[in-house]
Amino acid sequence: MTQPARSAVTRMLQTHPQIRQSPFDLAALTECIDACFECAQVCTSCADACLGETQHAEHLTHCIRLNLDCADICTTTGRVLTRQTQPDMAVLRAQLQACVAACKACGDECQGHAEKMNMAHCAVCAESCRRCEQACQQMLDGLAA
Amino acid sequence: MTQPARSAVTRMLQTHPQIRQSPFDLAALTECIDACFECAQVCTSCADACLGETQHAEHLTHCIRLNLDCADICTTTGRVLTRQTQPDMAVLRAQLQACVAACKACGDECQGHAEKMNMAHCAVCAESCRRCEQACQQMLDGLAA
Amino acid sequence: MTQPARSAVTRMLQTHPQIRQSPFDLAALTECIDACFECAQVCTSCADACLGETQHAEHLTHCIRLNLDCADICTTTGRVLTRQTQPDMAVLRAQLQACVAACKACGDECQGHAEKMNMAHCAVCAESCRRCEQACQQMLDGLAA
Amino acid sequence: MTQPARSAVTRMLQTHPQIRQSPFDLAALTECIDACFECAQVCTSCADACLGETQHAEHLTHCIRLNLDCADICTTTGRVLTRQTQPDMAVLRAQLQACVAACKACGDECQGHAEKMNMAHCAVCAESCRRCEQACQQMLDGLAA
Repeated sequence: MTQPARSAVTRMLQTHPQIRQSPFDLAALTECIDACFECAQVCTSCADACLGETQHAEHLTHCIRLNLDCADICTTTGRVLTRQTQPDMAVLRAQLQACVAACKACGDECQGHAEKMNMAHCAVCAESCRRCEQACQQMLDGLAA
Repeated sequence: MTQPARSAVTRMLQTHPQIRQSPFDLAALTECIDACFECAQVCTSCADACLGETQHAEHLTHCIRLNLDCADICTTTGRVLTRQTQPDMAVLRAQLQACVAACKACGDECQGHAEKMNMAHCAVCAESCRRCEQACQQMLDGLAA
Repeated sequence: MTQPARSAVTRMLQTHPQIRQSPFDLAALTECIDACFECAQVCTSCADACLGETQHAEHLTHCIRLNLDCADICTTTGRVLTRQTQPDMAVLRAQLQACVAACKACGDECQGHAEKMNMAHCAVCAESCRRCEQACQQMLDGLAA
Repeated sequence: MTQPARSAVTRMLQTHPQIRQSPFDLAALTECIDACFECAQVCTSCADACLGETQHAEHLTHCIRLNLDCADICTTTGRVLTRQTQPDMAVLRAQLQACVAACKACGDECQGHAEKMNMAHCAVCAESCRRCEQACQQMLDGLAA
């Protein structure tokens, strides 16, 4: 059986020289990094797909704007989480909270368009936003414990 | 007298079709966007300068890591703030808080290296981090009022 | 059997309103976008892992620098490729060429460290760089045909 | 007289430990880094302003798309140029060429909207794109000489 390519995240974390000092559960961290990078790609795609909905673009203005914010915030959160060498926990916590807020706002907006306007790309995007929101929240819960 | 080029931020905000709906004081917003983009550039530069301090690189590991986080977080915060069309205030607030945390952590670390190791690039970087931290905090204070 | 999460790329492209106007083979495009986002994550991770190799950091300076360039270039290339609405082919071609150059330089450097210094994270990173270099080159070859 | 804050670019380059090994003219490099970061901010702003032109958004679809590409490409080019430690000239050259292509495409499109639709933000953006295109071309010419 072929291994899915995204296991590169796992392999990088497993070979990191300072991974034993990580305050995170490795499986939860891997899931969260993966969810951030996926959501960054999907939100970039959803902004562009909404822009291409030439007959509905005006109703999708808020969605495009939230997609662009969420793509940038997920990219940055995924990068900050990827770095395991001597992290600052206050920075990490605040960026995770920003990512939860962005994924919640974007997921809510996309879910609305999926349901009311039957936008298939918004349905996929809502799903990625939920997955990323939950993964970031799980990381925050783990830090607080 | 020639006008400094960064007034492009000002001119873009002044010609934005929805700037009258902005919840922000225009001068404070301009200053904050400018501080975010400056700090993103300066932190990218400080990470690279620290990496190039071949005899001290080991002592600068934490500084490089914080610089990279701060560069990414300031880039994203500057982009989110730049967007004036239909913002989500919860997202904006959370990202500003992440930027305050990143600039504080990076500014503290760089100031330490400037004072103890006489690192001139860290002194410049600490100054940019303080400016950006204060500008973001001022935006947050304005939103809360 | 569960579907790997990265099929989100596929689902977004399949539901894009303008995908029929795409000049690209859909399978090749999907592979290339996926390779860009994977390589962006892996290079961010390899820069950080090299930084955490406290006894070897000095020998890894060039590697860290190339990793940082490659992470930024792959992120941007993945975003440009993700956008399917009214692309500019000259921009797309030039950014793909920059990505080929970055992945080649970073892949060569990482492969050297994997072989000579037995750096396991560099071996994983070299593999992701090769995959991304080839996927971008395949896109360029398809455009030229 | 107060010094404009963006001279932070200059101060960072002047204090960089490896700046004497730079293959670039320092004034040209400073100008190019500054132009890239300015253009990244301005294109992010122009995409958002076009999105907020609710009565014209459909005619601005191509402009928004080019703005988003140009913002990402300028951000990455500005970061790659900022790094002075052990650069790879083939990567640098290819990314500068991508930036020239993006700024040309976006500048042409924005100039057209400035002239035909009297879009003031597009006029400012066209100016920043021209400045960045020329600064990148000047860097390329300097490398070839």
